[in-house]
Parts: sequence; structure tokens; C-alpha cells
Amino acid sequence: MKYLLNGKLTARPGHQDALAEILLEASKLVASARGCHLYVIGKEKNDSQSVYVTEIWDSKEDHDNSLKVAGVRELITQAMPLLDGPPAKGQELEIIGGVGV
Amino acid sequence: MKYLLNGKLTARPGHQDALAEILLEASKLVASARGCHLYVIGKEKNDSQSVYVTEIWDSKEDHDNSLKVAGVRELITQAMPLLDGPPAKGQELEIIGGVGV
Repeated sequence: MKYLLNGKLTARPGHQDALAEILLEASKLVASARGCHLYVIGKEKNDSQSVYVTEIWDSKEDHDNSLKVAGVRELITQAMPLLDGPPAKGQELEIIGGVGV
Repeated sequence: MKYLLNGKLTARPGHQDALAEILLEASKLVASARGCHLYVIGKEKNDSQSVYVTEIWDSKEDHDNSLKVAGVRELITQAMPLLDGPPAKGQELEIIGGVGV
């Protein structure tokens, strides 16, 4: 069953765009990682601090391995000081079916 | 900017699978709708009532129009009595970028 992760990161005021840029860089790195189907970065209208990442992988294991892709650890290190507190645990879903992946 | 919708529906006890089946039918109907990139149905481990729908469309307008696709209204009508209360408003995101859509 494919694995979906909804993550939310909250940037310190004024750092939303910088945080989003780092995540866009991360998406390029993991695009060719094993089992990656979706890695999109979003934001909510009228929210100037939160950045959302929605990911779909063949498995949780493939997701976890993506953290070891060359360069990803460095991007996480860049992102950490921009965060307004520790990242919340993402919402994990098992995909039953549907279209687009 | 592409439009992402995270929806959550809660089935009455014992009706999660039936609700998911209806949503899987809906995904087939909207698969070829204008602007549809993703429509997946998921559930959380250890949650026997909730069903999640994650959708990505070219625009909110395309999403809204999908409710008019032939057969979709009938599926909504079938789903309503399975729900444990009215559906919560979904979380709407503007996609900044990423991969997979």
C-alpha cells in the first residue's frame, strides 16, 4: 500500500519563502529517489508562516531512505534555524487507491 | 498555482470500507475531468472510521466543476448516510512547486 505523508513546517516570521525554497530544492533531490511519486510544497492562503509538504511514496521505508539522499541532510540543516519550533509529526496515510500516482 | 485539497470524512462505525469504495468509484469518474492530477483515498492506521481524500487540481475551479461530473452527485448521495456527521471543511493549499504533478 502506498504511503502518504502530510507534513507541516512553521517558519519564523519573515522566513516562509526561504523555507519553501529549501523544500523545493529537496524536491529536486528526491525526485529520482526510489519509490517517490509525489513531493509537493504548498501554503495556505493568508498564512505567512506555514509551509506544507505532501509526499507519496511506494512505502514508508522508501520515504525514510530519502532522508539519506545526497544533499538532503544539508538542506534539513539549513532549514532548522528558520523554523519556529520543532517540526510537528506529519500525518501518515495508507493509500487504498485512486488516480494520479 | 495548482490547488491541493486534503479532505477527511468520518464514517459511522462499520461503514469505513463502504465509504472508501464510494470514493474509489468517484476517483474513476473524475480521473478524466479537466485539471485533475491526483485523487487518492487513504486511511490512517488504527483508525476504523476516517477516510481521507487528497486531491490536486489545476485550480479550485476545476475541483468545483468536478462535483458536476456525471455520476458524482449520485455517489455523494450514497455516501451521505454513511457519514458520522457532516463532512469537515477540507484543508486547501496552493502548490508552490515540487515533483510528481
